[in-house]
Amino acid sequence: MTDGRTLIGLDFGSDSVRAVLVREDGVLLAESVRGYPRWAEGKYCDASAHRFRQHPKDYLESMDDVVREVLRSGNPASVSGIAADTTGSTVCAVDREGTPLALLPAFSENPDAMFLLWKDHSAMEEAELIDAAAGRGEMDYRKYEGSVYSCEWFWSKILHVLRSDPRVADAAWSFTEHCDWIVGELAGNVRPETMRRSRCAAGHKAMWHPDWGGLPPEAFLRGIDPRLAGFRSRLYEKTQTADVPVGKISPKWAAKWGLSPDVTIGGSGFDCHFGAVGSAIRPGELVKVIGTSTCDILAVPDPGRCIEGICGQVDGSVIPGLTGIEAGQSAFGDVYAWFVRMLDYAGKTSLRQLEDDAARLSPAGRGVFAIDWFNGRRTPYANARLSGALLGLDLGTSAPEIYRALTESTVFGAKRIIDHLTSNGIDVHKVTAIGGISRKSPFLMQLCADVFGLPVQVSAADQACALGGAMFAAVAAGVHPDIRTAMEAMNAGTEYVCTPDPETARLYRTKYRRYLDWCSAVEKETLRHA
Amino acid sequence: MTDGRTLIGLDFGSDSVRAVLVREDGVLLAESVRGYPRWAEGKYCDASAHRFRQHPKDYLESMDDVVREVLRSGNPASVSGIAADTTGSTVCAVDREGTPLALLPAFSENPDAMFLLWKDHSAMEEAELIDAAAGRGEMDYRKYEGSVYSCEWFWSKILHVLRSDPRVADAAWSFTEHCDWIVGELAGNVRPETMRRSRCAAGHKAMWHPDWGGLPPEAFLRGIDPRLAGFRSRLYEKTQTADVPVGKISPKWAAKWGLSPDVTIGGSGFDCHFGAVGSAIRPGELVKVIGTSTCDILAVPDPGRCIEGICGQVDGSVIPGLTGIEAGQSAFGDVYAWFVRMLDYAGKTSLRQLEDDAARLSPAGRGVFAIDWFNGRRTPYANARLSGALLGLDLGTSAPEIYRALTESTVFGAKRIIDHLTSNGIDVHKVTAIGGISRKSPFLMQLCADVFGLPVQVSAADQACALGGAMFAAVAAGVHPDIRTAMEAMNAGTEYVCTPDPETARLYRTKYRRYLDWCSAVEKETLRHA
Repeated sequence: MTDGRTLIGLDFGSDSVRAVLVREDGVLLAESVRGYPRWAEGKYCDASAHRFRQHPKDYLESMDDVVREVLRSGNPASVSGIAADTTGSTVCAVDREGTPLALLPAFSENPDAMFLLWKDHSAMEEAELIDAAAGRGEMDYRKYEGSVYSCEWFWSKILHVLRSDPRVADAAWSFTEHCDWIVGELAGNVRPETMRRSRCAAGHKAMWHPDWGGLPPEAFLRGIDPRLAGFRSRLYEKTQTADVPVGKISPKWAAKWGLSPDVTIGGSGFDCHFGAVGSAIRPGELVKVIGTSTCDILAVPDPGRCIEGICGQVDGSVIPGLTGIEAGQSAFGDVYAWFVRMLDYAGKTSLRQLEDDAARLSPAGRGVFAIDWFNGRRTPYANARLSGALLGLDLGTSAPEIYRALTESTVFGAKRIIDHLTSNGIDVHKVTAIGGISRKSPFLMQLCADVFGLPVQVSAADQACALGGAMFAAVAAGVHPDIRTAMEAMNAGTEYVCTPDPETARLYRTKYRRYLDWCSAVEKETLRHA
Repeated sequence: MTDGRTLIGLDFGSDSVRAVLVREDGVLLAESVRGYPRWAEGKYCDASAHRFRQHPKDYLESMDDVVREVLRSGNPASVSGIAADTTGSTVCAVDREGTPLALLPAFSENPDAMFLLWKDHSAMEEAELIDAAAGRGEMDYRKYEGSVYSCEWFWSKILHVLRSDPRVADAAWSFTEHCDWIVGELAGNVRPETMRRSRCAAGHKAMWHPDWGGLPPEAFLRGIDPRLAGFRSRLYEKTQTADVPVGKISPKWAAKWGLSPDVTIGGSGFDCHFGAVGSAIRPGELVKVIGTSTCDILAVPDPGRCIEGICGQVDGSVIPGLTGIEAGQSAFGDVYAWFVRMLDYAGKTSLRQLEDDAARLSPAGRGVFAIDWFNGRRTPYANARLSGALLGLDLGTSAPEIYRALTESTVFGAKRIIDHLTSNGIDVHKVTAIGGISRKSPFLMQLCADVFGLPVQVSAADQACALGGAMFAAVAAGVHPDIRTAMEAMNAGTEYVCTPDPETARLYRTKYRRYLDWCSAVEKETLRHA
């Protein structure tokens, strides 16, 4: 036994799983990382809808790979224990045996039967329902979870699946956190009623607390939505910290990996909590796990109060005997990646393609707004201190979406001038467009007509300004008696006319009001500091 | 004389001049466009400082080219008249003879001795001085110009040159608008006291109005800044509409182009006004010249009132006998071009280069701010309805500037969590960073230290979370008695520590407060509509 005793740590991240094989004195013998294959193909996901689902097979297959790989660098006989962390709240519907539904043939391609990854935001509405119910009651069951219940968390995701997919709702006997299921799987017990549950996941995401005997009471859950009725009793009352064994390795996995049946499966928890331990956290030290998003962890003596607006404070969620405090940022590296992805778009396309892609988007949009003051504002009320803005950005925002928002903002800015003039008694019943853009972009001219609610006529003159010069020259030289006659004699006519589409125009009236609201908020804040 | 009588219209735009040769019945015989050569090289300009200067030689040389070219398609003997428009207010200091100073050897490379192009915003401060003075007086000399005086306009630019460049200020006998100078040049008279001045330029940009006998009184101008004293009398009292001849062509230009000395030089004006005429404007029709920016023109019967917040209403500025109304947007096509330029950056660089470029920028920045809620906000007070934003954008904003603002926003978001915890009594005196980004980006780690005002320690563990799993496995398996012992025995140590730079930290304290202000303005406006 030259290795001494060794341990395997498994870390299921957002995109990949990694394993380390470590000697009891901390010497790292091997590590291995494997991306989730279906996830890497973008399957079951839709970034623009904040839908991020992971297939349980992704976890099982890639875990098998990394464990086999680290074991090639060590002596399998020396392995004493395995423990695992995962992202969270990463939740999946399971059947009576505790099998994630997507592992059953009938549900193998149904995203609602898979794990809803922590960053899946499909359950926004459900989180608001839970939040409202918790705010109404005598006891605020969110109080150890920052007093705001997130759409990223356990009950929101459960309720979302139950509300949105009747087939999955019918088949869902219970639900599981990824971290509970994976160690249960390794230890050979995933039955909902008897499997072990992590204190960390339960306390931070599921409103579990000893003050009310575990999960929130049945009446409270049923009160949120009758569809939640009965699930409490098919979940759990007890939880355990990660230093408490879940059991011994199951014969199946021991055989697969050539490990002794005596290998202990340790408890589990969320990745950042395990990371805090892995970096030997001490009280007063904030451990910040910085990746696509961040998770911020503290392990401190009982603070003796409930802290609002965080992701929870749970006794023993990091270190047994200390209160684990979790907070975090929903996007960090993801923000930079978004920008790079947008820049990358350039390599693949032309300006014409960009406009075509933007033109194909729905006028309703997904809430991206621009303010067109990139060179200050000229009219109404010139102000060179103002600047441009992009609002409503998310990780799914694409270059064509931004391009579309930019075009809309310039046309909204144009509409604002027309409104300013008409509200000052000046008649404007038609718009004539000249200049390079009017000839080159029928898309923009139609946008103008739809936003203005007026016909927009594009002059056929390639050089309308110079032609005006020729007209004035004609009058100055006595060729024509006055400028009206010159305009009559020398004008170039109309290239085409855009008329407003009534439905699009109605939609843009609403969007225009929103643009004005954004303008006024941004102007106010800018000038406060000018 | 098969051509009938013909006319030349010249249009000096922002980037190029174009000429048309048109028969008296409107038939277009030829057109020609030539870019300004020095301008195309980016000479004398600094987009990030809003400084846009044009050399008078650019105008003369490119005008010579386009006129020669259109004359090749027609009979020079048939040309009866020439008229020209330009951008504006595009202003230049001139000597006693009316020569733009940059045409003198001593000033040939001095940007302050050149034309300040309409979109030059150097004179922001001066516009505010003029605005304040006009607001204080009994008579508001801006009232026919929308009651806001812009940094793009005549007096702002004059005062800016006088205040910022003593050499040019000493040599400046008077000033000229581009449109007045170019037709004066063609007609052989640019002497400040006697050359003809366009009603359009004077009325829209120089506060010229018959109500107060022309330009604003000497006392008012001197009251803004003593440096303006005396210029009024070296400028003008009278103006003329563009249908009134400026004179006959000068022998010099007639000879150069082989034209008859009888060719009439028509009056001049701004491009958009000429464009409105070129597209045969009628009352109630808004002519929108859409290019890099927009200029919006109406020609209406006297509205009988002063309209606030526009770029002016001037009798005869478009059509003699009607009131020309001008408004506009400071950027239109420029906004799209900005975005494409930013996307183009991608082809030239890598993510690493982007970070390096961002890291080299000054922490003080140029006012670009980002809000990091691209995936909603997690802490404090989770809210998935919030979204990301980019603020303070201008036409000079570069991809590295945005990248820098994005990184700062994520780190400000991180600081906000720390502040929230400490204000709730939780001690945070050090930050340990783990995760991919902490190992890959010393720039970001130093930014964290500077923004947090705390030491930031980067763990040496490549897989801190998995290592934590190994530690828990060790305890669960009885290899170590408890997790503290396991952390002590198995931790990976520290890779490096960043400590705050006091000066940068001070600067970021200010910027962080601004970030919080932006967050609260954007949150408020977002949730109002959620």
